[in-house]
Amino acid sequence: MNGQRQRTVTVIGAGTIGLGWVALFLGHGLRVRVNSRRADAPRVVDEALRLFAPFLPEGTADPVTFSDRLEFEPDLGRAVADADVIVENAPENLELKQELFERIGKAARADALILSSTSTLGPDDMGARMADSSRLVVGHPFNPPHVVPLVEVVAGDRTSPDAVAEAVEFFTSVGRVPIVLRKPIMAFAANRLQSALLRESVHLVREGVVTLEELDQVVTHSIGLRWATVGPFLAFHLGGGQGGLRKWLGTLGAGLERGWELLGRPPMDDETIQSLIAQAERAYGDKSYEELVRERDAKQTAILRTLAEVSAKD
Amino acid sequence: MNGQRQRTVTVIGAGTIGLGWVALFLGHGLRVRVNSRRADAPRVVDEALRLFAPFLPEGTADPVTFSDRLEFEPDLGRAVADADVIVENAPENLELKQELFERIGKAARADALILSSTSTLGPDDMGARMADSSRLVVGHPFNPPHVVPLVEVVAGDRTSPDAVAEAVEFFTSVGRVPIVLRKPIMAFAANRLQSALLRESVHLVREGVVTLEELDQVVTHSIGLRWATVGPFLAFHLGGGQGGLRKWLGTLGAGLERGWELLGRPPMDDETIQSLIAQAERAYGDKSYEELVRERDAKQTAILRTLAEVSAKD
Repeated sequence: MNGQRQRTVTVIGAGTIGLGWVALFLGHGLRVRVNSRRADAPRVVDEALRLFAPFLPEGTADPVTFSDRLEFEPDLGRAVADADVIVENAPENLELKQELFERIGKAARADALILSSTSTLGPDDMGARMADSSRLVVGHPFNPPHVVPLVEVVAGDRTSPDAVAEAVEFFTSVGRVPIVLRKPIMAFAANRLQSALLRESVHLVREGVVTLEELDQVVTHSIGLRWATVGPFLAFHLGGGQGGLRKWLGTLGAGLERGWELLGRPPMDDETIQSLIAQAERAYGDKSYEELVRERDAKQTAILRTLAEVSAKD
Repeated sequence: MNGQRQRTVTVIGAGTIGLGWVALFLGHGLRVRVNSRRADAPRVVDEALRLFAPFLPEGTADPVTFSDRLEFEPDLGRAVADADVIVENAPENLELKQELFERIGKAARADALILSSTSTLGPDDMGARMADSSRLVVGHPFNPPHVVPLVEVVAGDRTSPDAVAEAVEFFTSVGRVPIVLRKPIMAFAANRLQSALLRESVHLVREGVVTLEELDQVVTHSIGLRWATVGPFLAFHLGGGQGGLRKWLGTLGAGLERGWELLGRPPMDDETIQSLIAQAERAYGDKSYEELVRERDAKQTAILRTLAEVSAKD
């Protein structure tokens, strides 16, 4: 890609994820072209930039200075024609994405890097109608992508290793932490882990061991705090004391599997769903969505800055 | 309990958890009596206090000022005789704990609050040989208890509601976040959640989707960061946008159960255990246990201070 001139990134879709990418890329000095069929896209983007600017990890970015690097192009072909990087954020619909990527393939430069934010689909499937899908790579972010650093990078059989390397370089350049999955797997890694925790969370609330709000407090005040600093394996490596994971697994290894058999298998029936909704609205209903999102993002941004400071001292 | 004079807490056991409690209680101005049969207990405690002092959430506590509130009494009966609160941290062995609590019951004041740090046993079982186990309450901390705020409070059928209320008041007074479980359950709540996430973590590493070190990075840079700020239910309540958990479960509710069926069920066989140990030692073996623990605790303490600052601004 171009080392000299400023890179242009075309962001397709102005939903939650697309808007987060726009803010992040502008915050990192890139030119951004928004492709959305919404007539009010400029207003929506403007509002999002004002909302997100304080939470950009770099901090000081002023949304007003963004405007000379931001443009709107509702025509997909023109929007991607001279882009260096294209980031697709359309709804999770294979048919729709196949059509999108077919059109992108015909209009984009041959050396453009084509990224998809999909959380479930693979590059080979999405690019099935492209003449050449070797430069299509999944870059699955977490919401909101301008705050949460992880990007799961997923290649297909037809993806070129160069495109994967460029995707890693691109996400790193905008302050993200790309992890390349070594094998395709349904729902990728982080959402599977999230799903496993949610399953036991639903079980504990459904059984009446704790309320929904208490479950959230259990997590934030123990394992959430822990996993923000050390992952599960490093946590247990330290749990083994001087002997590390060797000692910890030596003592508990076989017992783990027995413990797993005792984990809950809650049904997601209507009664369970209605009870969870009622508890969530009782616990969190007195604050607006915007207020809760601002609190979450302020806390996550503060944690990221603090961790960067602590690491810099080492 | 005594509102006027300084409370005396007897900490039984000078292992990792016991030492963390000693540091926390001293940091909060309590008198602490350590009951340990180790001849070198004073040296072990002194070393721990020097190591832990910078990570006490209150920050400035100087271990030197602790000494006039710290004493050692190797005889169990004398150690608990006039204590206001007794905190037991013996190994997880029911027979051993039953004998301990029988002796404690005979020697302690009738109004003493008796707490156990057990992660697996219930008060009724542990107190089976006491004439009266109504004041025995489980207060299960996370490691290290002077850093991680959660304490799971668990009552038995014979535990008095007053003792539970006093346990909550006591843990709150030393800056912890006590959550009272509403029902007994094997392994309590947080360790079950931890176990569920570990199971899928082992699956992803065993399948070769990511390495052990990459798995840890996936967690710290996405869901760990998220769960340090909002629990799983609040996270999905916000994932539903303006519609909250109602919209999120309305869209995905039934699909969740199908997703759970696809989660991994890895065997914890010798090959898996040896592979995990080898990967952990490759990833983390170049740093000492002390170094890694200091990094973890420095990060966790920094996050807790940052979150307190952000919350204070709201």
